[in-house]
Amino acid sequence: MASKPSIPKGTRDFSPTEVAKRQYIMQIIKSNFEKFGFQPIETPSFENSDTLMGKYGEEGDRLIFKILNSGDYLAKANVTHLESKDSTKLTSSISEKALRYDLTVPFARYVVQHQNDIEFPFKRYQIQPVWRADRPQKGRFREFFQCDADVVGSKSLWQEVELVQLYDTVFTALGLEGVIVKINNRKILSGIAEVIGASDKLIDFTVALDKLDKIGEDGVKKEMIEKGIDEAAIAKVQPLFNFTGTISEKIEKLSQLLAVSAEGMKGVEELRFICEKVMALGLSSAILDLDVTLARGLNYYTGAIFEVAPPKTVAMGSIGGGGRYDDLTGIFGLKNMSGVGISFGLDRIYLVVEELNLFPETVTASTKALFLNYNDATSFYAMKAIKELRASGIKVELYPDAVKMAKQFQHADKRAIPYAVIAAENEMEANLYSLKNLVTGEQVSLDLEGLKQRLL
Amino acid sequence: MASKPSIPKGTRDFSPTEVAKRQYIMQIIKSNFEKFGFQPIETPSFENSDTLMGKYGEEGDRLIFKILNSGDYLAKANVTHLESKDSTKLTSSISEKALRYDLTVPFARYVVQHQNDIEFPFKRYQIQPVWRADRPQKGRFREFFQCDADVVGSKSLWQEVELVQLYDTVFTALGLEGVIVKINNRKILSGIAEVIGASDKLIDFTVALDKLDKIGEDGVKKEMIEKGIDEAAIAKVQPLFNFTGTISEKIEKLSQLLAVSAEGMKGVEELRFICEKVMALGLSSAILDLDVTLARGLNYYTGAIFEVAPPKTVAMGSIGGGGRYDDLTGIFGLKNMSGVGISFGLDRIYLVVEELNLFPETVTASTKALFLNYNDATSFYAMKAIKELRASGIKVELYPDAVKMAKQFQHADKRAIPYAVIAAENEMEANLYSLKNLVTGEQVSLDLEGLKQRLL
Repeated sequence: MASKPSIPKGTRDFSPTEVAKRQYIMQIIKSNFEKFGFQPIETPSFENSDTLMGKYGEEGDRLIFKILNSGDYLAKANVTHLESKDSTKLTSSISEKALRYDLTVPFARYVVQHQNDIEFPFKRYQIQPVWRADRPQKGRFREFFQCDADVVGSKSLWQEVELVQLYDTVFTALGLEGVIVKINNRKILSGIAEVIGASDKLIDFTVALDKLDKIGEDGVKKEMIEKGIDEAAIAKVQPLFNFTGTISEKIEKLSQLLAVSAEGMKGVEELRFICEKVMALGLSSAILDLDVTLARGLNYYTGAIFEVAPPKTVAMGSIGGGGRYDDLTGIFGLKNMSGVGISFGLDRIYLVVEELNLFPETVTASTKALFLNYNDATSFYAMKAIKELRASGIKVELYPDAVKMAKQFQHADKRAIPYAVIAAENEMEANLYSLKNLVTGEQVSLDLEGLKQRLL
Repeated sequence: MASKPSIPKGTRDFSPTEVAKRQYIMQIIKSNFEKFGFQPIETPSFENSDTLMGKYGEEGDRLIFKILNSGDYLAKANVTHLESKDSTKLTSSISEKALRYDLTVPFARYVVQHQNDIEFPFKRYQIQPVWRADRPQKGRFREFFQCDADVVGSKSLWQEVELVQLYDTVFTALGLEGVIVKINNRKILSGIAEVIGASDKLIDFTVALDKLDKIGEDGVKKEMIEKGIDEAAIAKVQPLFNFTGTISEKIEKLSQLLAVSAEGMKGVEELRFICEKVMALGLSSAILDLDVTLARGLNYYTGAIFEVAPPKTVAMGSIGGGGRYDDLTGIFGLKNMSGVGISFGLDRIYLVVEELNLFPETVTASTKALFLNYNDATSFYAMKAIKELRASGIKVELYPDAVKMAKQFQHADKRAIPYAVIAAENEMEANLYSLKNLVTGEQVSLDLEGLKQRLL
């Protein structure tokens, strides 16, 4: 192979620095998931195709990576589809497995498959990669990690309260203060649809309403009318055009607006419970916000909906989201298993933490000291110290070859190793080590114990 | 879907307990990799097919999972191969990507692709899953993790010394004492082939010699003769049939045996350096053993070869292996880049640690206390404590629903949660919490600070 090798588009290599930073974020998410009582599971990278297909809509099906059957796969290929060269129809006869598209469907499959071994309510977290054959673009990849926490087997709204707290705790721990946890409820949206008398226009309605800041009340109303929502209907939800105030005030407005809708009022009561408890318990740094235009995954969620926006100083889409779903495991035959969950968007969180310069310096700290290599005899002397230091948990290395000192110092410099240890003939005879601070140039002579104390 | 869902054969779901145990092992491997100066990288799960194909032999090519191109893949399919229904030949025209088969080839690709950004010698580790379309059997899976540490860019034998120490350190930290680190050298094997005058018979020779314990000297010689190795040749390596003694004695025997082979003598000198240094520096619990029958990956390694056997009390194949390769990146056009590396077999290590009952109990410890749920008012009182306790790093949970106490206690029991916290009306009025030890039944009344101290 003459040309330089490359990787498939939409995928990434991660350098040591990038891995360290990603692991730092994942570790904070993971430890807080556990503090909140979530337990880890892992599922296979590929699932049987029939587990995944048909669960994400037609577009989703198209974006699922299919794995070609092994061996003589054409022997079992559907002849009609093969001859008519119908790629879409042929696929199921030459591919039985597919890479997972998200962690939610595999989780539902896991719950149903292992239902007899699971103690419900089951709080699980899962941090694993997923794959989508999407067109790659800035911030959108074909392989990326999802970090999900879900509870299944309880309808208790305390879960929603805790999930808001979990967002607050994780982002506070990351130093990412001022994230906005937007909350809404699918039943509120149903109520609004009922009031405007146009369920089929709900998405048009919320999309238009969401532009209030940008195009003003008149602009929004114009767009709504263009989408076929009549003026009388719009008049009925006039309060939504001036939807300001505290969360309690907003809930009061909704309660008046949706009084005619039983479903809507149920949504108001759920929102009231969640928001009241969250606020009474207090958040460390996140800001809770009731956003009636929030409408993610309409056909999927049945109760609370969440979305997290980064602090206002950063121009970036949502860095997390989730909600309540009443029948996720129904697709695999297990009914009445309500669940609620949230997800953290690792890649975007990484970009935000990077932009705000919030990665602690220690995250990328690797080797603490490089022992210089003079010859085999001194290297043996160095290795005796290295063994001791490592046993005390100190990251140290011997430069492997007895090359010129300039080259060895350059190596330490390029790898940002803060100390060099000189263990040459003189040091060896005196049973000492010279520790050189590569930033200040300061050098001290120490015995092994002294060296250990300085590097700990 | 009526039938219970399942996962593809050869793949696994991991329960919370299994994930915790796997993470425990991986964490020990990872922290020691870092102590020895290795830095993490990650590569994509799938590579361009031409990066992988042809690197693992014909059998390997067959076992690589190929990903079907997205969209109308048949439009670009080779018509001749399609019409002749030649699966093997068709693949390259309908599949451009494949799941990685190991971590070594992607690492070589990474080094070549990023050579200008890498500071050599480059010590990297990588802990990621790989996929093989192998026939699944006990202990062999289609998706499994590899844990690799390699150094490229230096021929220094100190690396080999450190890699033996790394095995020793990791297995000692796992409590797995008495593992046997077998060492050999590809050049020793070349030397033996030279002495017996039959390079093409080398594998037959080592395979037969390896059966010495089982079938005795006569049996081994009989097998060698059957394989076409003549008696005169066998006589020349007679010392190998009584290859006992200390490592130094073994090296002495090899040095006499291979005196006629320059290549063999180079192997002897390398072995001598590595073994002398390892023994002089000392191992904590592993046992170093020179095994001339060790011949893993013959066409791949060029110097030292390693393989780790579990302690003798456990019947299990190798739990790690590795060696020196002089031209790995050559396949991608970067010459003269010697490397050496080792791998840890996570799945087998897991089985050994499990069999010897060496997982610390704390590994699977999750939630410390379950707050019982009486009603919304007391739950709010409980949540105030829960928030404080979590802020101190204590894993606590509220049972989400106000169901019968028996059911809530049963939940704690099934999840092996050691404490229940009773925060009912009485406790709330007194601003106290009753902590019940679910093992002893003992119950104490505490204020929040006292509760925190008991659960820390």
